[in-house]
Amino acid sequence: MSITMSRGQAYIHRLNDERNVWLDGKRVQVTEHPAFQGTLQTIENLFNLADEQDARETLTYWDEQTGGYVHQAFQVPLSTQDISSRAAAFRLWSERTYGVMSRLSDYARSRLTGWYATRDDMASHDPMYADKITAYYQEAKRKDAFLTIVQRDPQINRSLPVGEDEDAMLRIVRTNSEGIVMRGAKMVATAAPYADDIIAYPIQRIPGHRPELAHMVIVAVGSPGLHLVCRESFAASPSDFAHPLSARYDEMDAVLFFDDVLVPWERVLLHNNPEAVWQIRCNTASSSLAYHQSIIRLHSKLEFITAVTSAIAKEIGVDSFLNVQEQLGEMISQMQTIEGLIIASEVQAKPDSYGNWLPSFKYIETARNLGSRYYPRAVEILKTIAAGGLIQIPSGQFGQDESVGTLMSKYLGGVTMQAPEKIRLFQLAWDLTGSPLGARHDLYERYYAGDPVRNRASQYVQHDKEYLNKKVKPWLHMK
Amino acid sequence: MSITMSRGQAYIHRLNDERNVWLDGKRVQVTEHPAFQGTLQTIENLFNLADEQDARETLTYWDEQTGGYVHQAFQVPLSTQDISSRAAAFRLWSERTYGVMSRLSDYARSRLTGWYATRDDMASHDPMYADKITAYYQEAKRKDAFLTIVQRDPQINRSLPVGEDEDAMLRIVRTNSEGIVMRGAKMVATAAPYADDIIAYPIQRIPGHRPELAHMVIVAVGSPGLHLVCRESFAASPSDFAHPLSARYDEMDAVLFFDDVLVPWERVLLHNNPEAVWQIRCNTASSSLAYHQSIIRLHSKLEFITAVTSAIAKEIGVDSFLNVQEQLGEMISQMQTIEGLIIASEVQAKPDSYGNWLPSFKYIETARNLGSRYYPRAVEILKTIAAGGLIQIPSGQFGQDESVGTLMSKYLGGVTMQAPEKIRLFQLAWDLTGSPLGARHDLYERYYAGDPVRNRASQYVQHDKEYLNKKVKPWLHMK
Amino acid sequence: MSITMSRGQAYIHRLNDERNVWLDGKRVQVTEHPAFQGTLQTIENLFNLADEQDARETLTYWDEQTGGYVHQAFQVPLSTQDISSRAAAFRLWSERTYGVMSRLSDYARSRLTGWYATRDDMASHDPMYADKITAYYQEAKRKDAFLTIVQRDPQINRSLPVGEDEDAMLRIVRTNSEGIVMRGAKMVATAAPYADDIIAYPIQRIPGHRPELAHMVIVAVGSPGLHLVCRESFAASPSDFAHPLSARYDEMDAVLFFDDVLVPWERVLLHNNPEAVWQIRCNTASSSLAYHQSIIRLHSKLEFITAVTSAIAKEIGVDSFLNVQEQLGEMISQMQTIEGLIIASEVQAKPDSYGNWLPSFKYIETARNLGSRYYPRAVEILKTIAAGGLIQIPSGQFGQDESVGTLMSKYLGGVTMQAPEKIRLFQLAWDLTGSPLGARHDLYERYYAGDPVRNRASQYVQHDKEYLNKKVKPWLHMK
Amino acid sequence: MSITMSRGQAYIHRLNDERNVWLDGKRVQVTEHPAFQGTLQTIENLFNLADEQDARETLTYWDEQTGGYVHQAFQVPLSTQDISSRAAAFRLWSERTYGVMSRLSDYARSRLTGWYATRDDMASHDPMYADKITAYYQEAKRKDAFLTIVQRDPQINRSLPVGEDEDAMLRIVRTNSEGIVMRGAKMVATAAPYADDIIAYPIQRIPGHRPELAHMVIVAVGSPGLHLVCRESFAASPSDFAHPLSARYDEMDAVLFFDDVLVPWERVLLHNNPEAVWQIRCNTASSSLAYHQSIIRLHSKLEFITAVTSAIAKEIGVDSFLNVQEQLGEMISQMQTIEGLIIASEVQAKPDSYGNWLPSFKYIETARNLGSRYYPRAVEILKTIAAGGLIQIPSGQFGQDESVGTLMSKYLGGVTMQAPEKIRLFQLAWDLTGSPLGARHDLYERYYAGDPVRNRASQYVQHDKEYLNKKVKPWLHMK
Repeated sequence: MSITMSRGQAYIHRLNDERNVWLDGKRVQVTEHPAFQGTLQTIENLFNLADEQDARETLTYWDEQTGGYVHQAFQVPLSTQDISSRAAAFRLWSERTYGVMSRLSDYARSRLTGWYATRDDMASHDPMYADKITAYYQEAKRKDAFLTIVQRDPQINRSLPVGEDEDAMLRIVRTNSEGIVMRGAKMVATAAPYADDIIAYPIQRIPGHRPELAHMVIVAVGSPGLHLVCRESFAASPSDFAHPLSARYDEMDAVLFFDDVLVPWERVLLHNNPEAVWQIRCNTASSSLAYHQSIIRLHSKLEFITAVTSAIAKEIGVDSFLNVQEQLGEMISQMQTIEGLIIASEVQAKPDSYGNWLPSFKYIETARNLGSRYYPRAVEILKTIAAGGLIQIPSGQFGQDESVGTLMSKYLGGVTMQAPEKIRLFQLAWDLTGSPLGARHDLYERYYAGDPVRNRASQYVQHDKEYLNKKVKPWLHMK
Repeated sequence: MSITMSRGQAYIHRLNDERNVWLDGKRVQVTEHPAFQGTLQTIENLFNLADEQDARETLTYWDEQTGGYVHQAFQVPLSTQDISSRAAAFRLWSERTYGVMSRLSDYARSRLTGWYATRDDMASHDPMYADKITAYYQEAKRKDAFLTIVQRDPQINRSLPVGEDEDAMLRIVRTNSEGIVMRGAKMVATAAPYADDIIAYPIQRIPGHRPELAHMVIVAVGSPGLHLVCRESFAASPSDFAHPLSARYDEMDAVLFFDDVLVPWERVLLHNNPEAVWQIRCNTASSSLAYHQSIIRLHSKLEFITAVTSAIAKEIGVDSFLNVQEQLGEMISQMQTIEGLIIASEVQAKPDSYGNWLPSFKYIETARNLGSRYYPRAVEILKTIAAGGLIQIPSGQFGQDESVGTLMSKYLGGVTMQAPEKIRLFQLAWDLTGSPLGARHDLYERYYAGDPVRNRASQYVQHDKEYLNKKVKPWLHMK
Repeated sequence: MSITMSRGQAYIHRLNDERNVWLDGKRVQVTEHPAFQGTLQTIENLFNLADEQDARETLTYWDEQTGGYVHQAFQVPLSTQDISSRAAAFRLWSERTYGVMSRLSDYARSRLTGWYATRDDMASHDPMYADKITAYYQEAKRKDAFLTIVQRDPQINRSLPVGEDEDAMLRIVRTNSEGIVMRGAKMVATAAPYADDIIAYPIQRIPGHRPELAHMVIVAVGSPGLHLVCRESFAASPSDFAHPLSARYDEMDAVLFFDDVLVPWERVLLHNNPEAVWQIRCNTASSSLAYHQSIIRLHSKLEFITAVTSAIAKEIGVDSFLNVQEQLGEMISQMQTIEGLIIASEVQAKPDSYGNWLPSFKYIETARNLGSRYYPRAVEILKTIAAGGLIQIPSGQFGQDESVGTLMSKYLGGVTMQAPEKIRLFQLAWDLTGSPLGARHDLYERYYAGDPVRNRASQYVQHDKEYLNKKVKPWLHMK
Repeated sequence: MSITMSRGQAYIHRLNDERNVWLDGKRVQVTEHPAFQGTLQTIENLFNLADEQDARETLTYWDEQTGGYVHQAFQVPLSTQDISSRAAAFRLWSERTYGVMSRLSDYARSRLTGWYATRDDMASHDPMYADKITAYYQEAKRKDAFLTIVQRDPQINRSLPVGEDEDAMLRIVRTNSEGIVMRGAKMVATAAPYADDIIAYPIQRIPGHRPELAHMVIVAVGSPGLHLVCRESFAASPSDFAHPLSARYDEMDAVLFFDDVLVPWERVLLHNNPEAVWQIRCNTASSSLAYHQSIIRLHSKLEFITAVTSAIAKEIGVDSFLNVQEQLGEMISQMQTIEGLIIASEVQAKPDSYGNWLPSFKYIETARNLGSRYYPRAVEILKTIAAGGLIQIPSGQFGQDESVGTLMSKYLGGVTMQAPEKIRLFQLAWDLTGSPLGARHDLYERYYAGDPVRNRASQYVQHDKEYLNKKVKPWLHMK
């Protein structure tokens, strides 16, 4: 890292590599193409906060290993205080971005930290794992790495058993002295064009007879043969006035194609090892630390959408109607529920067998599962209250034409706002619910954590049924 | 209408007037600005169908009054057969546009036809009304007019009583020998930039002491002083491959500003007449004929979204899963419910006191009210089934680059489809649910018929409570 | 049938057989035990209607085969008129019982009629079937038989494959010259204690290697070895004033134990024949005719609960509140939806290959599937509106004590009703929603037609996907 | 209190007064009529716990004022530790009664404690209040009083303004040197027949011009002129085997008639004072302490119904089905959400201006509002999973008859349970959902805290909108 560059600048500098990023059918330079500039600016600002006196204290900790201030997501918590410090850092970034940036790498960094903190779990599976993950964890801290994680393979035919369709799964096609060569595809790689490295492993349990599908690797985004094919950009340009969120917070989703990508051995954390990879997938430390970030971010987003909806209700004069108040009350109830679960998860934190303190996963899991319904419901309430107002927002900048500008001032004001503010408010609401970015966020919250049906089922499967059974037993032999 | 122009050409020719249409802050020519071309092409094609031998029979009837083939929406039904003929015409247009074009003027024409057919209702209110509406009805038929209707005033402060905020309501500011001069604004004027004329009257009941707010007028879109301020266009261009619906079916919504617009007396159907205007608003003939069209269109749209969802379920291999089948079954159940209610409304048609046959409003109303929940639910099911696949659609034309094109072919195919078709299918699904057009349609179906809470309440208020009471009474004095 | 007995008396006379009906741990005589008297009275009255001049015309048709007036459920419809006649008869009984009696045997009689009408379907499976079912159909008409149907086997372990648990399925244990001997259990045998005969066959598809589980038999309720074990009675007594519905309409549910019951050959319609029995299960004629009755009954019940809710809203003075009106509007919308689907099913009736006219199953199926959600929702609305009023209904007869009676008159009246009527109204509402009878009806409507998830899925599985596909195809190759 | 009587005995002894309790139209002695015995036994046992060494520590605290062990609900919390102690006592009683006893007076005692702790709030309204409430608070502690609260007036006509219907509101008809004389009625007086005293005040805000309706009084249940008219009893008898919950936990609801009841001055806490009474109604200390108990009880009940549902799913072999697991997971998620909110409310406790520590009301309120939907949803899930099994529970004691007993053993067992246990389990489930007690609990949870629509609206009305507004403001003037 250059001594003269800020963290944010250093980050952007690193993106100037040979990465194959495809947008609109063309290979593009992320640091130059306009579609990425607004979001890059957002990330740069967030990274730079670590260099600012005030924010540094909240956002980072002094790391002995690397001799520098490191983002809290990398901190292995050894006390409830550490958990609170991590939470404060998560909160700072998520409030700065109103919960709309989901994968600023604090999630992925937390997963990495969790795996690192429990690295001895893998001792019996692969003696090299501990050293490899330690080395990468140090590297990531040192370079303030932007990470992302991919797990899913393409939606070709979900009714086939895992491993049956040759093309459907990312796999090792050969190995050599330098490393392994991988072929296949991965989806949905959120934020991949903005990342330094991608951590990849399969979401499904790999059957024992297909070990070549069971791997956990860290791939540099600039690796030869790796192609990132982006979906359409939602950011018209960083100065798109009418879509303020899209212009700043499009974190992008991409499909990854591995066209025989070499991953060097030191970044092959696990390979040919279905059982070990499944344990990685189910690792509680990693999940607790990462989803702790997710639900803090969710809370910021619920606050934001509630705030927007509340402002609209006020400006169109419906905030005194009982049915509108009830809906706003439901939004507040959502916020407070997630808040309560965050508090409970922190208060009920406990140390694991290594002495890592982990927020209580059951409350985190509950909050995460509620989130998959809460956010879409919040969107629905915003739509219900704003209704027709959302589809009659005048296009173009206000005041460009005198006569029409005057008419707009007269007729498009609100209860307390002048027309320009009220139009701005509705633009914000539309960008949150009606723009492609808005639609994508509705989908994101429903599905980012996987199939919500399975996630809810899992709360039952994991639960202590013996404890429940004790509530019923006395009745069964009662006379 | 020129003898050499098709109906569609004549329609487009008429739009070349002095209308003040504002898009992106600039005054634009509708017939030339690219944002309108795809939709104009769609309308032109639909209008031209009336000149094609095959479709003419379904779409039009021979009208003695004007001596020509006239769109069925103008037909005053005098038998159940006429109702079926109207329905067939509605179905033809809505199937051609997959139910996505909501206001092709068959709705507004039907309202006009209903008011015309019951014009004698107004005899005691305004002796001029009958002649005026007859004249306009003939004119509209003769020119194959594209009509739209606006009712709502701006969302300034809904908690104030009607008429309390001076600026909030479109009103007559003076009259002269030529007509009345109007000032104010109206929202949401769907399809207004594409219309010949706009029919305007207030949606709320006007109190007796504010007669100047109670008017029903027909305003030429090209009237001096009338400004149409459009929302953002959803149609990037008519050749936007990735958004096939947006490119063809953006019917546009606009706010109307009346900057002292003169409406000539012959088009002032009613003025200073709260009671008469309220009757117009509640006119059953007009509502039955117009909403009959709405629910036929709704049915086409439900079929379309069901078809898209079913195709996606099949291509990603989830159509054999019980929970997916249940959701698809729910979509089919929605379609069949609306279908059943359309049939019932037609079968139970009855003549009114003038001999007009009207489809039964209660079944139409039920279907319309169900629609405000069914369509959003259908969107939700599509999202639930397609899930992550919707946000990883590669941007850009497939095949532009050799190497990446090959990878896409390999990894992005479906159970039966090759990659290009499957990507196309997901683009269609995204355009239906994730694009601004998709978001707008979700809102449209919820709210186009007014506040859904009031609409449902109205089914109770209008219902025969005496009939219900007879079911309870025998029990109350039972020994 | 004795010349001097009415149909109702004859029916009751027939119940005086050796049937093994168990209630509260004791074997009881149905015609004498008080728990059955209210319901028997109800059935007797309904049966007697066929002897009354006015009702006979609606309820019966003149049957040439038996030379008598026979209930319409037995009529094989040969025209849309016949379908209407059947509907009118269903409506008469269901309105007399407010839709609360679900299994008055018009359902089972309709199933029988459907199987009889399509008896030639079985020709290739079992040459004896046609004669046997014809003979029984004639017998049932002649004696005005009260029938019921059972399909399910006990809920022992639903995760086992069909036929794996020996005890879980009713099966043939031996055959002899007289007939077959059956062992096992069946649940939920609704109305069994009131029935003449029970038609039994399995609900699940029987695998080919377990033919002894695949049978369709008609069992006389009085057969030796057949035990009917009743659930608790909901009818305190026929004069239970506070529970007017429970006192009259408890149709009872029972578990059947077959302790080696001999079924004579003439009543063994099919045996050892999985394929034939599965066709019986899926027979469209039988389902269309029977579920046609179900949805007419459902409609009466929805009307009744709407009427009760509407009366309560009025009497406590909440019927002018918008949120209450909306909920009542939703109930009315439910009624009208089912109404529309009944109409559509009748209007779209078509003849099958034998010339039987059948109401359109798709609309019937949709109505039935909606019903499983509509009725519970109606119950919820009633509870929401009546709320606390339901749990403070004074127990005991009004007026028994002077002083308290006076206080009740003063404080417990309604907007228009005096205290006694209002208390009666709330008793009715409580009996419909809070009594065990009410709870059982909520369950009944959800599940009587089988697993609602599978029923909804079936609407997709059976649907014409090719037709849907045509809506999508044009888009996939569009340029 | 006799030195030889246990607390429970002393309580029952006190009920032997002249109270006018009416059941089934007759005046009854609560301590003798069979309908009350099961519940009295339950209460007696709970009261006696305070005399048992082990439970005393959890259930009581040593009270200096009265020199005895007093139930924790009376403790004024002065630290978070005190809040935890209160919670532990609530949990002990609610777990002993599986959350099914809602008004064991810990709720009412907590309200009293809250009012007492903030008695100085009333100083400006009524200088006598502080001494009166202090005296009663001491008395209640000393006698271990069973209290209940009533607020609502009869549902005569809710559309009339408060105070318009003379009979609709409990009011003071005259005063004399001894006290005030009250006339009117109150509903729903839950647990009133079991209570020592009733605290009464109006739920609605009393307008300033009707001061005689604004009172807060403590009425001895045995007061002359006070009549308690009970709803039907749900407890057939304390030995009703088939309804184990109804037999033990029917807390009874009653309408109260005040036929000119004298309330002595020392128990007239407030009178003719609309503003003061409204403050009592909205007192946060009282609400926080009381609803803290409510949500702890709710949690026990959710655990219990989850346990019953889970046991049923296991015994009928459906607990491995994904859709069943999802529903059970939803129940667990409900439990954990309430758990998280309880923890948050305790952790975020703060002292008020008097130094009383109060659990955070916002989390309590959220939990309470969620509860009004969670419990009915839990009931629905239980019904969905148990389905038909709930309506085929054999009536009568198992084994009374040999032959049928054998058949039941064979066919009615479960995956792990023998028939008797499985039948018992279903009886428990039916009692929880299908019995009148079950129906009443569904209603209770929906409405006990008042109109759930208003309660949700209140969360918005009370919320800090300025805080929300800060999230939106920066966007409105962004360039």
